[in-house]
Amino acid sequence: MGTKGKVIKCKAAIAWEANKPLCIEEVEVAPPKAHEVRIQIIATALCHSDAHILHPKFTKALFPVILGHEGAGIVESVGPGVTNCKPGDKVIPLYMPQCKKCKFCLSPLTNFCAKLSQFKDPIIQQEVMEDKTSRFTCKGKPVYHFLGTSTFSQYTVVSDTNLAKIDDDANLERVCLLGCGFSTGYGAAINTAKVTPGSTCAIFGLGGVGLSALIGCKVAGASRIIAVDINSEKFAKAKALGATDCLNPRDLQKPVQEVIIDMTGGGVDFALDCAGGSEAMKAALDCTTVGWGSCTLIGVAIGDKGLTVSPIEILMGRTINGTLFGGQCCHFFLLIFSILVLKLLQ
Amino acid sequence: MGTKGKVIKCKAAIAWEANKPLCIEEVEVAPPKAHEVRIQIIATALCHSDAHILHPKFTKALFPVILGHEGAGIVESVGPGVTNCKPGDKVIPLYMPQCKKCKFCLSPLTNFCAKLSQFKDPIIQQEVMEDKTSRFTCKGKPVYHFLGTSTFSQYTVVSDTNLAKIDDDANLERVCLLGCGFSTGYGAAINTAKVTPGSTCAIFGLGGVGLSALIGCKVAGASRIIAVDINSEKFAKAKALGATDCLNPRDLQKPVQEVIIDMTGGGVDFALDCAGGSEAMKAALDCTTVGWGSCTLIGVAIGDKGLTVSPIEILMGRTINGTLFGGQCCHFFLLIFSILVLKLLQ
Repeated sequence: MGTKGKVIKCKAAIAWEANKPLCIEEVEVAPPKAHEVRIQIIATALCHSDAHILHPKFTKALFPVILGHEGAGIVESVGPGVTNCKPGDKVIPLYMPQCKKCKFCLSPLTNFCAKLSQFKDPIIQQEVMEDKTSRFTCKGKPVYHFLGTSTFSQYTVVSDTNLAKIDDDANLERVCLLGCGFSTGYGAAINTAKVTPGSTCAIFGLGGVGLSALIGCKVAGASRIIAVDINSEKFAKAKALGATDCLNPRDLQKPVQEVIIDMTGGGVDFALDCAGGSEAMKAALDCTTVGWGSCTLIGVAIGDKGLTVSPIEILMGRTINGTLFGGQCCHFFLLIFSILVLKLLQ
Repeated sequence: MGTKGKVIKCKAAIAWEANKPLCIEEVEVAPPKAHEVRIQIIATALCHSDAHILHPKFTKALFPVILGHEGAGIVESVGPGVTNCKPGDKVIPLYMPQCKKCKFCLSPLTNFCAKLSQFKDPIIQQEVMEDKTSRFTCKGKPVYHFLGTSTFSQYTVVSDTNLAKIDDDANLERVCLLGCGFSTGYGAAINTAKVTPGSTCAIFGLGGVGLSALIGCKVAGASRIIAVDINSEKFAKAKALGATDCLNPRDLQKPVQEVIIDMTGGGVDFALDCAGGSEAMKAALDCTTVGWGSCTLIGVAIGDKGLTVSPIEILMGRTINGTLFGGQCCHFFLLIFSILVLKLLQ
């Protein structure tokens, strides 16, 4: 390609500081160095975590920054040593790396990577490439990367550990959702909660992640799926995807967990909190059955006070687990499911 | 037997009210009704949960009561309909019933029973038999049962759902520990945490439950077992049972979870909290590795404020689970392990 080895000028949405709107600017995107890949981003979605970074409570955020971590594109050029993709390949940038060498990557138990584990807060990280520099500049200043992906740019540079090659037939405007929301929700139901056939499930929060968790519960064979949201307008889509019951906590006379316990004769087998926030997490835990109830945490809310658990709730046989990006090996998972999702969404 | 069908007079330790010493009194023990078994208690141990009930914070406790739930004895007589034991059989009274008919008993996932699930707090329950009356009287007053077992009496009456027949060769003074402490700790490691060969474990609290959890980790093949207690005198026994490292948080310059993370290069695979209390539970969770760390809660402390969890800790791949009486099917478990434990303890 004619741009290989050259700086590319293109448009990007830049966050210059916290709590301010993004600005569309012309940026310079440097060529990829060793084990880096420059991608032309064709489509990107917006995730709540992009908004989190702009919140003043995230005092650790580095600005200016190009946000975005739910995109899809085409490889423009690759740096030395890249073997897992080539120019022209369709790829999805991944905010969770996979070095394939560390104890986490070598374990079937997790999609975590040691490259990530050095950071305490996974929301703020991968702001620079491995050589500690950025590939973006704007108005003469370096601009930070975000989550190793920065998909709010027409071109971005990612590490070759942070992408998945996908099917040549993939519709990039649709499969960009695999870059976070779909994988996170679907994977939580399949890999983390391990929803079983015939089980009862409750899903809190019916955004992209919640609806994807709902698809996961349905595919896993759940016989009853109770969808919960404070916005009743989301119920039509939830029902279309397989929800058997929809509850708006604001319309109920008692706490939603009590209603679910009554509806199910003692609580659900699996609850998935895709909303975040202490109240939703607590309701998700409380509505699970004694004996084997499983509560999977997926959502994180700004300024969250956390979930306070009474040990007796846990001793009575409940489990709390959680996941980022759907758990287990997300890269392999992405390859397999890109075709499935294409069919689901088309 | 000569006592069959008659009231038996014997000694028992009675708790007349909260926060007062137990009194040894003469009590009358009525014959067993349908599906009940009268047991001559040969040995009983003391569990912290017996002391909990005397604490003024347990406002729901009913007095007077005969405590004790970690005993072993010999069946004196049985009521109509009892088929799972006969006079002369050695048995262990069980504080967790097993009706063998409810959805919990029929599931391999739990040792819970629907007879128990109607009570919110499993510590305060089974104070009377199923016909809502007691089999104990003292000085003309009815005396409450405790946890359906009341082993602090030379004779007790239990439901036939609340006992396990054990091997005729069992040494009752030793296997009485199967009635709570050993099963709780050992079962937590084997059934709930599901400790894996070659794994690293941390155990918080080295009382009877903690040492039994340690035996469980050792039997499961853990390669490193870090034993934690604020009483260093417990370390010799822990080492004899297989602990590879012992830590006293009061002797450390930084929080015990940080020391464990340093010692293990990132945290243990399994932590088992056998102490209870917010601080120990938090340390147990924090010292587990990202990716797949499992924190099993077993202990409950008086006046516990609970465990406050940041969702990010869970989203990074940690699991919190817990268990009462060792999880899964405790009755079958008891039968199998009574012989093993006899050998371990003799």
